[in-house]
Order: sequence, then structure tokens, then C-alpha cells
Amino acid sequence: MKTQSAPTRQLAEFVAGSQWRDIPAAVRREGVRGLLNYAGCALGGCGDEAITLAIRVLAPCFGPAQAGLIGRSERCDVLNAAFLNAASANVLEYDDTHLPTVMHPAAPVAPGLFALAEARGASGTELLHAFILGVEASCRVGNSVMPHHYRRGAHITATCGIFGAAAAAGKLLGLDPVRMNWALGHAATQSAGLVESLGSMSKSVGVGNSARNGLAGALFAEAGFTAAESAIEGKYGFAAVASDTVDLAKITDGLGERWEILANAYKPYPCGVVLFPVIDACLELRARLTAPVGRIAGVAVRGHPLLRERTDRPDAGDGRSAKVSLQHSVAVALLQGAAGIAQFTDAAVADPAVRALSQKVTAEDDPAIPVEAAWVEVRLADGSRIGEHVHAGRGTPGRPMSDIELDAKVNECAAFGAPFVDVPALIAAIRDIETVGDAAHVMRMTVPA
Amino acid sequence: MKTQSAPTRQLAEFVAGSQWRDIPAAVRREGVRGLLNYAGCALGGCGDEAITLAIRVLAPCFGPAQAGLIGRSERCDVLNAAFLNAASANVLEYDDTHLPTVMHPAAPVAPGLFALAEARGASGTELLHAFILGVEASCRVGNSVMPHHYRRGAHITATCGIFGAAAAAGKLLGLDPVRMNWALGHAATQSAGLVESLGSMSKSVGVGNSARNGLAGALFAEAGFTAAESAIEGKYGFAAVASDTVDLAKITDGLGERWEILANAYKPYPCGVVLFPVIDACLELRARLTAPVGRIAGVAVRGHPLLRERTDRPDAGDGRSAKVSLQHSVAVALLQGAAGIAQFTDAAVADPAVRALSQKVTAEDDPAIPVEAAWVEVRLADGSRIGEHVHAGRGTPGRPMSDIELDAKVNECAAFGAPFVDVPALIAAIRDIETVGDAAHVMRMTVPA
Repeated sequence: MKTQSAPTRQLAEFVAGSQWRDIPAAVRREGVRGLLNYAGCALGGCGDEAITLAIRVLAPCFGPAQAGLIGRSERCDVLNAAFLNAASANVLEYDDTHLPTVMHPAAPVAPGLFALAEARGASGTELLHAFILGVEASCRVGNSVMPHHYRRGAHITATCGIFGAAAAAGKLLGLDPVRMNWALGHAATQSAGLVESLGSMSKSVGVGNSARNGLAGALFAEAGFTAAESAIEGKYGFAAVASDTVDLAKITDGLGERWEILANAYKPYPCGVVLFPVIDACLELRARLTAPVGRIAGVAVRGHPLLRERTDRPDAGDGRSAKVSLQHSVAVALLQGAAGIAQFTDAAVADPAVRALSQKVTAEDDPAIPVEAAWVEVRLADGSRIGEHVHAGRGTPGRPMSDIELDAKVNECAAFGAPFVDVPALIAAIRDIETVGDAAHVMRMTVPA
Repeated sequence: MKTQSAPTRQLAEFVAGSQWRDIPAAVRREGVRGLLNYAGCALGGCGDEAITLAIRVLAPCFGPAQAGLIGRSERCDVLNAAFLNAASANVLEYDDTHLPTVMHPAAPVAPGLFALAEARGASGTELLHAFILGVEASCRVGNSVMPHHYRRGAHITATCGIFGAAAAAGKLLGLDPVRMNWALGHAATQSAGLVESLGSMSKSVGVGNSARNGLAGALFAEAGFTAAESAIEGKYGFAAVASDTVDLAKITDGLGERWEILANAYKPYPCGVVLFPVIDACLELRARLTAPVGRIAGVAVRGHPLLRERTDRPDAGDGRSAKVSLQHSVAVALLQGAAGIAQFTDAAVADPAVRALSQKVTAEDDPAIPVEAAWVEVRLADGSRIGEHVHAGRGTPGRPMSDIELDAKVNECAAFGAPFVDVPALIAAIRDIETVGDAAHVMRMTVPA
């Protein structure tokens, strides 16, 4: 059992000293799934208005064409590439989710690694190893300051993701423990991001910066640029600023034994997590429905009280609010047999059929139903009813996304945002990343020819 | 009296709507002094090891040569220029100081303005106006979250300076109130910086980012990139994250009537503020001393208890700790008749004569002496004594730096860091900045031919 006297230093030593052979097979596998989900989300988001606008703002400051932007033809310096790819991966809210902290680890951590792989070279195994360690660093720092950190308004994906971005980039750069410690110190002093910014494009600034500034922190440290060695636990350090409920042991306990990436889940639908079992039930009902959907007279939903509290939104006005609308989610799932990116756009919200069915959805609290479960009953015009009970929605801990479902998600994302990508080849390359000699190859598969 | 219902919006409206004719003469004058001090500090710091190292790290990512670096021949994109010039201006700890918050306003606010002046054009008056408004925004946001914000560990120069950087750049870009509000929102979600990082090079990362990211926030807003409109006061906004002692009225009360820049002071010496009266007394004693300095047998200092608490450091090991060493400060002032940048270098600390005299300094608490005063007595080898009492040290509110002293400081800084600069011409250009048609002209005067 290690002491908690210097958690920043201990975390740095762990990351710097980690050997590939120490990474268990299950952790490697989850790392691959995390990279796959990252690539998919970025392909889906790369054409979003916020990304196009961000590129227009930053392009006049682009440095040399060192790295690519997933799903796009522009190339730029590694720091701007990290910013923009992180923004793309997160903009649709289709991310991976570390369940204990509700953090999205991949968007901050992965982009700097692919940028470095392009600019400096890295094998697939080196990249995967660094990614796993970066996720570990982000989540452990996040664990140490939750729940007060997020509750007060810190957007943990950005504020803690930067630690993982710095650790991962530092690992790929081969930093020694002293420099890795400095990289974490530079991350700490750059940690930023507000929950208040969610719901505006500014969310992407926070998430983009976590990737960019974490990578920058590693590059500064590599050059011998010093930082506070007790950056997390120091009297005026990150933890003191971040939270009134600090438990530094969560950074160091069981390092290398317990792996946070195993608590990572992947969203099956780009919407609020409480909606997952409801959507599952609706998709099942649609498959069982013998009458046309137009005959539906009403839909009754029963679920945990949190379901209505978070998503009772019968008049979602745009794609963004549709992502947290029970009524919209039910309507698109029943009408279109899907609840993907296309079902949560402004256009989907404007569809009269969706609006009409949304108005027929009623919801009821049932404290006996767990949050990952739901019950949905469809009533037809002839008075007949069919119901569906889902015990554990897809993408919840009791029913994680299968590899096949994850592949389908990547396909859906690419079809939406970057239809030119050879998705089967990309999926194969990521699944086999341990055998890829040049990790930048994966990145090149995501951009237009 | 305005309501405090939406302070972020009110601040945005004030900055966007401010007219040059509304700026009182005393405020304009202090703005000029602030720019002068900024230019001096950046000239002094531009050759510091941390700046050279930062340039080495960032240069591979430099965009087009849009803007200059004070005192240096490199040119780069406006964002990197803002980062590096802010770091230069702050690295020596010779900044301006907003006394109510102990924030250094100019380093975050000024660099983005000069970069924009080079890239897009701006008159001297436009730049000065934007600078004054930026300082106002930084200090007012700072006032609203002090004292708890800094006490917990937030490095207020960086965390609140970014609001001024965004506001000032937004003003120069001519943002309307809605976009100015977004610029402040982008600033809020990027606010970062830890007191823990002071004492390491990482301090420059925080201060550099405040200038860079504030400018980026304004550029994002200009392009229509949206942000949270209640970014400061919102439930999960900046204020909630920043402090347990929030007073939002301090952002909005008396906007345009009371000006925070009038509470800005300029350091006469690049060291701890409690040392200023002691150094004044030593310089006066040296001038009065008829015997050679080598005959000094002892130096007795009496001052407010804070003096010993903060600066009783008889064995300062390097230039950085010398900046908070009473003994070192007394020794250099008496031996060299100066306490400038050259007196707080590692070389100055290593000087055997300085070390010897440092050992002869004793200090005593006297709670009756105010913190801005001090009493110093020199005892010579022949037993004779002379004493000097300073009521208000230079650079304290009771004895602000005169224009002549400020000019001398700029001269000293340039001689240290950028001896090629035509300092009289630069000082004249800044003092007459209201008549300068192209503010970038001032910037060009600071770089090698």
C-alpha cells in the first residue's frame, strides 16, 4: 500500500513507469473499444456547425500541417488538431462515459496521441498504451474531487480530462517521472471548464482546450519547463480549488491493479442516458407492431422518477433539447425505428409526424423501477395495447454495448458525418491496433482521400 | 442604480457601448502608465529562460507571422504572440498591481491588443480604450470573487485576467453586446491558474493562457460561436466555481463611474511589496553614507510584523527567493545602490559581498509601524550609526510611482532585456499613444531592427 504523501508524483511515476506487459487483456480490449468509439464520435461530429465555425476562427493561426482533422481535409499543427478533434468527438454528446464520474474520457485524451503519432511517429501499441494510461489519470483525478467538483459547476470532462491528455501525451513522448510530474502540473494550472457552458458552442472550447492544453503541458515538460510538483495536492493546488470533498487516496489506491477504463460505457443513442431503456423498449415495440405506426393512439411510459425530472419535454424546439426529451425520443424510435444522430437534428424535431406522435406520449413515475429500466405501452386506434419492459437499457452497466453494436454505431456516425470513410477497414485497423506499426495510419483512414 | 440580474450581460453591454469621450482624463492617464509599465516589464522579461524555452516549445506550432514578440525577432500568429508576450510581461514579477485584488491586470489584457493592432489595424486611442476597459473587466470580476478565490488557490491574474483579455480584444474587434457577452462566456469556461504554480515556470503557462485564450474567446464570439450568457452568475457558472464569497454587485455597481485602473500601482523594485519601504530607506542611507559600504558592521531593520513573516530569508539560494528576502534586498540596495532586475538574479545572490552583508542584517517586529513604512539603521565599524525612516515606500498607495520613476523603470528593464530598443522614443510613443494612428507602430519599436 503506497502512502498518499505525493499523489501527483505517484501518478506521474505510475504513468512513466508503466509497461505494456502490465496491462491486462480486458483493459487492452476496453482501450480498443474506447478508441473505436472516439473515432466514431469524431466522424459523426466533424461536420457540425460548431466545428466548421471553430476551424474558420482558428485557421488563420494554424501552424504547419503536422496533423489531420478526423473526417476533414484540413491539416494543421498538433495543438490546433488536438483542440479540433476533441471538439468533434464530443460535440454530438455521443461519447464514452466513465460511469463513476460521468466524465467523457476519450475526447480529451485521444486527439493529442493521434496528432503526436502523425508528427513524431508511434506504433499502435504505444498509442493504445498511452490512451489507457491517460484515461486512468483523468478518471482517478476526477474520482478524487467528486461529487462536489461537478455539482459546483466544473465540467469534469474538460477539467479532469486535461490530466489524462497530459499524461497520455507525456507517455508517448517518453517523459521520465520528473517531467511527467511537470506535465501533470501544467495540466493542473490549465484545468478549466464550466457546466454552465453546456448547451452552447462554448462547451467545445472547454473540451477542445483540455486536449490542446494537456498536449501542450506534455510538450512544455519535455523541454524542461518546470511546474509545481505538488500541483494536485498542494495547499494552493488543483484539489483545493476544485472541490470541498477531496479524497486523494482515490488517485493512488490500487494503481495498476484496478483500472478505471473498465467502468467506461458507450452510448447507444446520442441522448440522455436515462432515455436508453425507453428507446430500447420503443424499438422492440416497433418490431412487434403489426399495425402501421400511424395507428398509434397513445404511448404510456413508466419509469424511475429521474426519467420525468430530466426529460419531460413535450415541446423540444431543436435537436439539442430533443436529446433530453422523452416525448421526442419515443416518437422517433417508434416512427423511424432508430434513435441515432439523424433522429436528434433540428430537422428531425421539425418533422410534423414526430411532433404529432410526441403529443401522444404520457409519462408516469414509478419509484419501484430502477433508473436503467423502463416500461412502455403502446395503445392503438382500435383500443388494443402492447407493452414492453426493459430491465437494463443498452449502454448501462447491466447491458454494455457489444462489439457488434459498437461497430454499428461507428458505421452510423461515419454515414452521418463522413460518408467517404471505408468504415469496415477503419474498424479493422482499430481493432487490430496492437499490430499496427504506424498509428498515424489509422488517422489517415479517417480523412478524405 | 442597475439591477444585478445579469451581470455578465451588463458588463458586456458596458464594454461594447463605452465611448472614448466617456473615459475621464485621469483614467486615460493611468491607462497610458499601465501600457508603459507593461512594455517595460515585457522588455525586461523577454530574454528570461522561461520565455526562450516556451518559444522553443511553441515555435513548431507557430502560425503565420502576424504579430511580433516584444524584445525578440520571432514573429508568429496572434494567439501564440498573446501567450508569449503575456509571459514576458509577468515573468519577472515586476508587473502593475491592482491593489484591492493583488492582480496584475496588464499582462493578460495588453498582449492580445497589440497582436490585433498588428494583424487587423487599430489606432492608439482604440487600443488604449480597449486596454482600460479590459483592466476594468478583469478587476471587477476579481473583486466579485475575492477574497476566497485567491485564498483557495486560484491565481487571480490568470483566472480573472482572461475576462479582461476577452473584453479588451472584443472591444477592439467591435463586438456587439451579444457577441461581447459570448466572449465573456468563453473567458469564463477557460478561466484557469493555480497559486501553487507560482515559483515554477508553469506560472507563465497560466498567465500566457489568460492572454491567449481571452483573445481566442473574442475571436470565437466574433464568428458567432455561442457561449453561456450567464457565464459568471449562472448556477453552474464561474462565480459558483470560483469562490464561496461572491458579491456580484461588485461587477456592475458604478460601472463607468468608478474606475478600477485608478487602484493600479507599479512596482519600483521586482520584489515583494513589503520590502519597498526598506529598500527606499537603504538607498537613502547609502546616499548619506560618508564611509565606504565595506565599513558597515550591522544593519537593523524595524517594520510591521508582516515584513519578517514574509521576507525573513537570510540565505536566499537563488534570484527567485531573493525577491522575497529582506536580507538580500538590504544588502544589494546598500552595496549597489539599486534594487532592480540585475540585483535579483542568481548571479547577484552568488556575489560574496552581498552574502556577507546579508549576514549582518537583523530585523525586529514593530506593530506600531504600518506595512508601507519601515525604519533602517546602519552601524559602522567605528560604532557610529545613521538611521532612516520611510513613511510610505515608493509604489505604495501613499507614494505612487511618478512618471519620471516609471520612465526610469522602463529604461532599466530595456537595458536588462532588450538593450537595442530606443527607449526614449518608445516612451514618447506610448505617452502620446492617443495621437498614434497605427498602434502597431509601438509594437514595432520594441523589436530588433
